[in-house]
Amino acid sequence: MLTIDYANCLRSRVGEHGLADDTITTSAEQLTGLTQALNASRGTGWERWRELWNNPMRDEHLNRVQAIANECEGRFENMIVLGIGGSALGNIAIQAALNPPSYNLLPHADRPGPRVFVVDNVDPANLNAILSICDPRETLYNVISKSGETAETASQFMIIRQMLQDSVGSRWADHVVAITDPEKGTMRTICDDAGITTLPVPEGVGGRFSVLSPVGLFSAAVAGIDIEALLDGAKAMDERCSNEDASKNPAAVLAHLLVRLGVDQGKTNHVMMPYANALKLMGDWYAQLWAESLGKKFDTNGAEVFAGFTPISALGTTDQHSQVQLYREGPNDKVIGFCEVEDFGHDQSLTIPTGMGVEAIEYLEGKRMVDLLNAEKRATEYALVESVRPNYTIRFPKIDAHHVGEFIALWEIATAYAGLMLNIDAYDQPAVETGKKATFGLMGREGYSDWLGKVNNALSVTAFTS
Amino acid sequence: MLTIDYANCLRSRVGEHGLADDTITTSAEQLTGLTQALNASRGTGWERWRELWNNPMRDEHLNRVQAIANECEGRFENMIVLGIGGSALGNIAIQAALNPPSYNLLPHADRPGPRVFVVDNVDPANLNAILSICDPRETLYNVISKSGETAETASQFMIIRQMLQDSVGSRWADHVVAITDPEKGTMRTICDDAGITTLPVPEGVGGRFSVLSPVGLFSAAVAGIDIEALLDGAKAMDERCSNEDASKNPAAVLAHLLVRLGVDQGKTNHVMMPYANALKLMGDWYAQLWAESLGKKFDTNGAEVFAGFTPISALGTTDQHSQVQLYREGPNDKVIGFCEVEDFGHDQSLTIPTGMGVEAIEYLEGKRMVDLLNAEKRATEYALVESVRPNYTIRFPKIDAHHVGEFIALWEIATAYAGLMLNIDAYDQPAVETGKKATFGLMGREGYSDWLGKVNNALSVTAFTS
Repeated sequence: MLTIDYANCLRSRVGEHGLADDTITTSAEQLTGLTQALNASRGTGWERWRELWNNPMRDEHLNRVQAIANECEGRFENMIVLGIGGSALGNIAIQAALNPPSYNLLPHADRPGPRVFVVDNVDPANLNAILSICDPRETLYNVISKSGETAETASQFMIIRQMLQDSVGSRWADHVVAITDPEKGTMRTICDDAGITTLPVPEGVGGRFSVLSPVGLFSAAVAGIDIEALLDGAKAMDERCSNEDASKNPAAVLAHLLVRLGVDQGKTNHVMMPYANALKLMGDWYAQLWAESLGKKFDTNGAEVFAGFTPISALGTTDQHSQVQLYREGPNDKVIGFCEVEDFGHDQSLTIPTGMGVEAIEYLEGKRMVDLLNAEKRATEYALVESVRPNYTIRFPKIDAHHVGEFIALWEIATAYAGLMLNIDAYDQPAVETGKKATFGLMGREGYSDWLGKVNNALSVTAFTS
Repeated sequence: MLTIDYANCLRSRVGEHGLADDTITTSAEQLTGLTQALNASRGTGWERWRELWNNPMRDEHLNRVQAIANECEGRFENMIVLGIGGSALGNIAIQAALNPPSYNLLPHADRPGPRVFVVDNVDPANLNAILSICDPRETLYNVISKSGETAETASQFMIIRQMLQDSVGSRWADHVVAITDPEKGTMRTICDDAGITTLPVPEGVGGRFSVLSPVGLFSAAVAGIDIEALLDGAKAMDERCSNEDASKNPAAVLAHLLVRLGVDQGKTNHVMMPYANALKLMGDWYAQLWAESLGKKFDTNGAEVFAGFTPISALGTTDQHSQVQLYREGPNDKVIGFCEVEDFGHDQSLTIPTGMGVEAIEYLEGKRMVDLLNAEKRATEYALVESVRPNYTIRFPKIDAHHVGEFIALWEIATAYAGLMLNIDAYDQPAVETGKKATFGLMGREGYSDWLGKVNNALSVTAFTS
């Protein structure tokens, strides 16, 4: 199971920049209270995501996702996921974590499923490039939109629908699996009218907490990922994170460290730096969860607080050669979170050959690559401690679906704790709505013309250019 | 040419969180002084990067790079770049900016060169995955290391050397082009002994300022990128940035905005958020440059300053759906830099089809994708101004080699200005060295055993885990 080593966040390691060594003990009562509150609210309101790995939702989703994935099997050479934000990042992160970086380049027979592309933007060059290498006749389009009104996903969908109609005619809907509201909304209506196969975005599960719902499970299953193990891992972590004994509750510990270092010690930049390429995009997934959930102007009493921490996604060893200069010598305003992998499976034995015969690099001969990687991680940990910069390590026994499921649940539950600690609503996103409305205004959607005026007034042409 | 619109960094737009509207005028004298200083030091010491686009270096590099690229033409199906940090990020960023995301998936005949892989880590799973899909007999290995002693690149090189010897025997050196010190060092010796073709890492050009030297130009040329246009763009920008009239000098303006907003107004997090997938990794390149150059504990007088800003790489519209919640409602500690592209070339006309017949998304019908993308950018700009968050836009007429060259030179020169403004050495990286030495100690390199002791003492086993 995943473990968190947080010794380097404590005073005995980083002096006044850390928390007291007994911080978990002295905060035990408060943390137990939060655990009790979260255990009481689980499965209700916007915390229904916390039942995704428990029955009845678990089996309902697994059965339906697997059945549709089975129907798709062998029919498609490509799968294009259309979605944005929370509807896309989780899919990308799971794919990157659990399939090799060479996945799309492997010959058909060496892949468990079709090539996978996630189009999470409306950049015309990017969209054209992906569409142009995927013959619609052999492509599955996985459209993810709860409402169907998100401008990016709606416009992507309109383009691929036309492409499909031109290419396969009236059978176009057989190439689409939509993940959307099970009962209402624009995408629901479109799917019902066209006979598109659908999977639900479950009620009470927000975009950024949806990766272990059909939103993330379907594309994972099609790409041959063990989605049961993902859910089992999440469930196992959730059980640990339901423990009222804070010292044995990883989410409570993690949230406590980051919130207290952030609020009390000014360490408001929270870096995620895995020493494993496969986990880099899990860092991006974490970044959207942590940023959007905790970045809030008002607390639950309506007081202005401008809460939140700035998540940053980095990669070891690569970013040792640049970002770590800043992390060690710049403002002491960060907590660095490492991920370390103990076992890279059949890649664990990759060894640096002997016989080079060059003295300056002879010490590398016969060493395993993994030992170099993890030595660099330990060296960086040391370098940060020497500069009194708090850091912690999440240790992965290996990177597989179970442990990725654990990682996802850990951060989702830690986010729920952090929301309570900061006394903010971790589940809304009011500031995202303004941009959506202003976009509607600029694009001429009926009923939004006043937004066009607001934008043009605020951004009138000026001469401040260079 | 690139232009910077910085109206949204000023008081008239974002109130007390901005700079005075006449900030460039009132700082003109100081900025002119800095320009004169930089014009005087250009081409000397660690500022020799600033002559990369001028003769004699320009033509020397172009001729030699192009000659070797021509020799390689048609011989290889794959090129694997081995390097790390400044030796890799620029190559990745140029490739991502100027070739389509589908490049490696295109049929041989549709690509101007071999498939391109940049291996910038020692993750054994990542390295194995890439090596396993590239037959050494048809692969070119581009090794980039000034000294040859960087542990990551050295170990990668030792592995591919063995693979090549096993595969093609004594002709293995014909599959390697090394970019290294022209005169001395471990890699130099290896190349001379083995008869490996080399290109120079020019003297006085540090890793993070090396992308427009052979370090970045060779892989670009092999992948069919117009490297002359890259240098022409850089030269054109440099000319603008040599102008003593600050208001007409984009690098002086950019550095002034970011340093003053950072130091005087506490906006220490500097986001780069292009609205173009192709520029996302240019954001990563910028991030390593800005972080490593400016993150310094001591100023040039030896006083402790803990200078520096935290660069963050984001992507529009994607991150509107998560990060922008934090950027608008979290701590007001950021400056958001957008990139906007006016012309996406032959993708500019990609249009959302008509005939969907669904009222809620009818406003999208017949609109161009680029107009949606740029409306979203304008909407986000508006939303940030409404929340009094400073932001600016770098406008690309189009994404091509010339404008990418401009962008690179703009940020390199802005970094030089910022170093002077902060009174720090923008060209050293003392904090990176500790981690390297500690790694040597942990890996058993002779002469570094005291570092092993230091690390083990500092990180002795503790019970702070969860």
